[in-house]
Amino acid sequence: MSCVFCAIVAGEAPAITIFEDDDCLAILDIRPFTRGHTLVIPKVHTVDLTDTPVETLGRMTAIGQRIAKAARLSGLHADGNNIAINDGKAAFQTVFHIHLHVVPRRDGDKLSFAKGMLVRRDGDREETGRLLREALAHVDAAEKD
Amino acid sequence: MSCVFCAIVAGEAPAITIFEDDDCLAILDIRPFTRGHTLVIPKVHTVDLTDTPVETLGRMTAIGQRIAKAARLSGLHADGNNIAINDGKAAFQTVFHIHLHVVPRRDGDKLSFAKGMLVRRDGDREETGRLLREALAHVDAAEKD
Repeated sequence: MSCVFCAIVAGEAPAITIFEDDDCLAILDIRPFTRGHTLVIPKVHTVDLTDTPVETLGRMTAIGQRIAKAARLSGLHADGNNIAINDGKAAFQTVFHIHLHVVPRRDGDKLSFAKGMLVRRDGDREETGRLLREALAHVDAAEKD
Repeated sequence: MSCVFCAIVAGEAPAITIFEDDDCLAILDIRPFTRGHTLVIPKVHTVDLTDTPVETLGRMTAIGQRIAKAARLSGLHADGNNIAINDGKAAFQTVFHIHLHVVPRRDGDKLSFAKGMLVRRDGDREETGRLLREALAHVDAAEKD
C-alpha cells in the first residue's frame, strides 16, 4: 500500500491512536513539533482541500477541536494549540492524504517549539497517548452532559 | 468597541471583504504573510476553540476551504494553502476573537514566505481582494452545478 495513512487506517502500519470513529482516525504524529502533536485523518483517502468533501472536513475539524480541548485539560498542560491543514506541496504537505494537525502549545514555549520543529521527537509516546486519551474522555463526557 | 473584529463586523472599522454570509465574514489580513492571506471570522464573538460552537467552527472551515480553492483558481495562482487556527496566546493568537487563516502558497515560495512573515505587506490589497472574490464566485458557481 503506497499511502502510509491508508496503511495505518487498514491496521497494516503501527500508530498510537488518540481517537477513532467510523469516519476518522486521530494518531500521534511520529515526528511531533511538540508533545501531543496529533493528526486527524479521514479514513477515506483524499489528497487535499481540492478533493475532500466539506462534510469530511467538518468532521476532522470537530475532532480537532475536541483534541485541542483535551490537550488543555490533560497532563500535557497545554495553554493553547495550533490547528493546521497544509493543503498542497507548496504549503509543506508531505503525506498526500489530507490530515489536520493539532499542536499543543504552552505559555512561553517559543524556544522549545522552535527546537521541537528541528528535533521532532517524543521520549515517551505511549504516555503522551494515554494522557490525551484520558483527557479526551473527560471532554466527551462533558459534551454529553 | 474593544474587539477589532467585532468593529469590522459592525461596519465600524474598514476591511477588504472577500466573502460574507449571515454567520461569517472573510477579510484580507491587514498584515499578510503572503498575497491573499485571508481571515475567516464568525460574526458572533467567541475567543478560541474552548468557547466556539462546533457548528460555527464547521462553517468557518467550509468557507476556508472555498477560499483555498479560489486562491488556486485565482489570478494569485496559488499552488496550495496553509489553513490555521491559533487557539490561545500560547499558540500565537493575537486577536482574541477566533479566526481561521487561509494563507495562499506558491511552489518554491519558501524564501518569499519567510520574508513575508517579517514584512507582512501587500502593495495592492484592493486588486488582491478583487482577484479572490472573482475566483470565489467561480468556485461557488461550480459547487451549485
